[in-house]
Amino acid sequence: MPASIGEPQAMKQIDFQTDPSRYRHWRLGFDGPVATLTMDVDPAAGVFGDTELKLNSYDLGVDIELADAVQRLRFERPETRAVLLRSAKPNVFCAGANIRMLAKASHAHKVNFCKFTNETRLAIEDASEQSGQRYIAAISGSAAGGGYELAEACTWIMLIDDRRSTVSLPELPLLAVLPGTGGLTRLTDKRKVRRDRADVFCTTEEGVRGRRALDWRLVDEVVPPSEWEQRLRERALALAATSDRPSGAVGIKLPPLERNFRAGGVTYPHVRMEFDRVRRCAMLTVTVPAQLPPDLSAIHATGAAFWPLAMARELDDAILHLRLNEPELGLIVLRSEGDPNVVLGADALLEAHKHDWLVREIRLLLKRVLKRLDVTARSMIALVEPGSCFAGTLAELVFAADRSVMLTGRRSGDNREPATLHLSAQNFGAYPMGNGLTRLATRFIGEPDSVESARQELGGPLDAAAAEALGLVTMTFEEIDWDDEVRIMLEERASFSPDALTGMEANLRFAGPETMETRIFGRLTAWQNWIFQRPNAVGEAGSLKLYGSGQRPRFDQERT
Amino acid sequence: MPASIGEPQAMKQIDFQTDPSRYRHWRLGFDGPVATLTMDVDPAAGVFGDTELKLNSYDLGVDIELADAVQRLRFERPETRAVLLRSAKPNVFCAGANIRMLAKASHAHKVNFCKFTNETRLAIEDASEQSGQRYIAAISGSAAGGGYELAEACTWIMLIDDRRSTVSLPELPLLAVLPGTGGLTRLTDKRKVRRDRADVFCTTEEGVRGRRALDWRLVDEVVPPSEWEQRLRERALALAATSDRPSGAVGIKLPPLERNFRAGGVTYPHVRMEFDRVRRCAMLTVTVPAQLPPDLSAIHATGAAFWPLAMARELDDAILHLRLNEPELGLIVLRSEGDPNVVLGADALLEAHKHDWLVREIRLLLKRVLKRLDVTARSMIALVEPGSCFAGTLAELVFAADRSVMLTGRRSGDNREPATLHLSAQNFGAYPMGNGLTRLATRFIGEPDSVESARQELGGPLDAAAAEALGLVTMTFEEIDWDDEVRIMLEERASFSPDALTGMEANLRFAGPETMETRIFGRLTAWQNWIFQRPNAVGEAGSLKLYGSGQRPRFDQERT
Repeated sequence: MPASIGEPQAMKQIDFQTDPSRYRHWRLGFDGPVATLTMDVDPAAGVFGDTELKLNSYDLGVDIELADAVQRLRFERPETRAVLLRSAKPNVFCAGANIRMLAKASHAHKVNFCKFTNETRLAIEDASEQSGQRYIAAISGSAAGGGYELAEACTWIMLIDDRRSTVSLPELPLLAVLPGTGGLTRLTDKRKVRRDRADVFCTTEEGVRGRRALDWRLVDEVVPPSEWEQRLRERALALAATSDRPSGAVGIKLPPLERNFRAGGVTYPHVRMEFDRVRRCAMLTVTVPAQLPPDLSAIHATGAAFWPLAMARELDDAILHLRLNEPELGLIVLRSEGDPNVVLGADALLEAHKHDWLVREIRLLLKRVLKRLDVTARSMIALVEPGSCFAGTLAELVFAADRSVMLTGRRSGDNREPATLHLSAQNFGAYPMGNGLTRLATRFIGEPDSVESARQELGGPLDAAAAEALGLVTMTFEEIDWDDEVRIMLEERASFSPDALTGMEANLRFAGPETMETRIFGRLTAWQNWIFQRPNAVGEAGSLKLYGSGQRPRFDQERT
Repeated sequence: MPASIGEPQAMKQIDFQTDPSRYRHWRLGFDGPVATLTMDVDPAAGVFGDTELKLNSYDLGVDIELADAVQRLRFERPETRAVLLRSAKPNVFCAGANIRMLAKASHAHKVNFCKFTNETRLAIEDASEQSGQRYIAAISGSAAGGGYELAEACTWIMLIDDRRSTVSLPELPLLAVLPGTGGLTRLTDKRKVRRDRADVFCTTEEGVRGRRALDWRLVDEVVPPSEWEQRLRERALALAATSDRPSGAVGIKLPPLERNFRAGGVTYPHVRMEFDRVRRCAMLTVTVPAQLPPDLSAIHATGAAFWPLAMARELDDAILHLRLNEPELGLIVLRSEGDPNVVLGADALLEAHKHDWLVREIRLLLKRVLKRLDVTARSMIALVEPGSCFAGTLAELVFAADRSVMLTGRRSGDNREPATLHLSAQNFGAYPMGNGLTRLATRFIGEPDSVESARQELGGPLDAAAAEALGLVTMTFEEIDWDDEVRIMLEERASFSPDALTGMEANLRFAGPETMETRIFGRLTAWQNWIFQRPNAVGEAGSLKLYGSGQRPRFDQERT
């Protein structure tokens, strides 16, 4: 019997870093303002080796390449204003997540796989909406399940009207699970499909084609085969024309990250993680460089080595590594080291040049990385100590944490100044959470005046008393209590049920409005996770287990 | 070993009807505009007989009485403008849901228990906000878990400052589950507690008391013991003074429902249910009377027998009966029989007299019953046939359904006119869903003009072609296809996984904005249901199972 994917016996470290020279499943092509991103999944190149990825079905490895491609297009290709998403397979656009992979995967792997694919779909939408790279899904053949969900993430969905190409969400009838990559939420929130039609669509294995797909708002355009290529080109150029991408700009290269994996942690140039396996805790420290480029042209010249960009890429990789490869480290302790003035200097550059295409991309990447943290199912506690530099962009880590603790005064035998917290303009709009609000606005949802009080303190150092009075940290301790209080807090957290913490944090972190994005990670994902635990899906006689066996699943008919 | 609650072997029919003469757990007292609702749970009177309800802990039976009391106060006591919620037990306000009951309950029972208690809490808020009956929680002693959640549902929370009375949500540290009766959502959405404080509060078993409870927004007022009774009275009178309840009005009595339970169904005067256990389907038919009272005074004289009120109470009871006592009937087929003009006549009365206190209550009850349907985890298909009367208020059943099917033309051998659908003013605002929108606005979220097109057709009969053209029904069939199409649709629905349907419907039914209410039934409930499936809570070594045994739970430490 093959080992389950994500179970310890099959543990293989998943690497989120790749580049086009190593792609097995995607191809990038360029023609003026239009890039073509072609899906051509290599059936033999599944991330776990033992699952055949037929019909452009995907696993996490396929999606890691997609996420990389979407990211590179933004940074490396300023001239790209529209992206045509196509399939190289005959008669199939994409068959969605690979079922055998899902059937074999552990619960934690399924959940984290869906979380990452959801983040990639949202990154596509972010590129369309914020970076002026409009995505067009060119569906020829069947777009089933995750295949249609991928199309839903595009700005525009084109369907060839050849009497056999269809869109479908057959998860429920076929597998007794939900379309878990935002499919249901995008039907209601983005495409605004009438709910009874959505009900019919989601329970119809064979899907919908042609005119009906258009009438039901499932696609944006239906095209006769004879006009297909021409209309794709026209549509791509028309959408490209609406883009605000720069003319004549030169992209920057995203080189491989420098990383050093050890059993006890991972080290990057600006991010360091140390694992305390006894306390099930990852100590994550962000560090800052001594110097920054002086101006915009120096930022461009520095490229991927510019600290905010380098740090964001490293932090992103670190979070993903924790999620997939270190499932038992339930707590992230967030720390920082360095001169807060350097962070404030970086923030000043990000603010002064925010209309530059590259700086815009860096800010958008920071936004996405911080959002990745928000939906990470680990408890987060920020420690603000002497020598830390939680300023501006890095202060977002404090506000992303479930709790923050700040040391009052100096430590004996430590000649560093007492810890300070600093706010910058970046804390007031650059990094909205999934709910559309800044972390400060979310934090002070019951006392909006506190956001204004905080804004009065822009830049200036806030000591522990000031930070606590402004409500910016959860609690403060003096040296005499610090070690015991922090130790007890970490040990207590480690003693709680990981599941209950995940559920609690998913509720408490997202006060205020819901958006399509928060509904995907809240409502849709929570229901999907529930279904992923139910015997009707994952039991021995459940749909996922029996898929492809020729046996029909046997359902417990009790409704809850 | 005792049988599990809600498992077939322990099946005992749960009755949602009661009245004050039969209460075992609550007492009602009246003093001018202030009613006092006193919780005094009889430990020996658990609904399943084998669970001792210590310390004002509750099970479904306790909550059924609470729901009844809240409902009766609205209809029977127009003079009541404030309700003081108190405990008769020393040192405890309410200890929340009974843990041993939860530990023994089946998954479906836990889920439905939480759903009902959530609906009761929302009914308390509806009474406070819409009916001018302001609820005040008078916490003396500990309000723990569901006890604090009950207080959160009140307009105003008063806490005695006696150094031992506390509020707490200890579910996570104590039981590895969430506060499942809206507790987390009300912290973020209603009380707007800062998220890091909410995190500390929800992980602190012993809770918070006195001044800190006030500073953290957990309560609205902290009162010294010497002033307790006087301040309660003053606060109740002050809130009563803000009420728009009528002066000198006479309440109406809510008599016991006439019901006839059979193995094959239930019959009420205006609601009939027939169970098709082979197809796992409940055929629910609403009927209308021949006559209505002519005017407002006749409505008051008719009282609980006035059709909209009588029908609403019966429909409510029928839905609850299905939920708790018929878990395997996964599909509700909604039908109606009678003269649509009578329904339109009733709607005209409800509209003309909507400012009358009693008519207001009837409309609010209809709103709540329809919302009960929206969150019922059963598929719903409405059949619009000759002889049906889906008009105005009853047309909401069509819009609440996951799908609706309408017969075109007559049936051979049936001399009734072809089926018609009718809209009334009640479809455009009287019955908002939990998301704050009407069912029509939710239905047409992607095409708001369609709401206006429908409004143009107020009153008039819409035949199948017209209803389909307006988008009011999902599909239409002629007689020659009807029987086969409907049969296939019902059989197909019955073949799907009940869990997957529940998850899909919970997503598709709630397009548009989220509110505290939808977040309770969506985000919070979905996460709680997931946790209720996880071994860390319900496994043999899980927290719920081991509670009170002296053994510590053993957690799988994997985070998802």
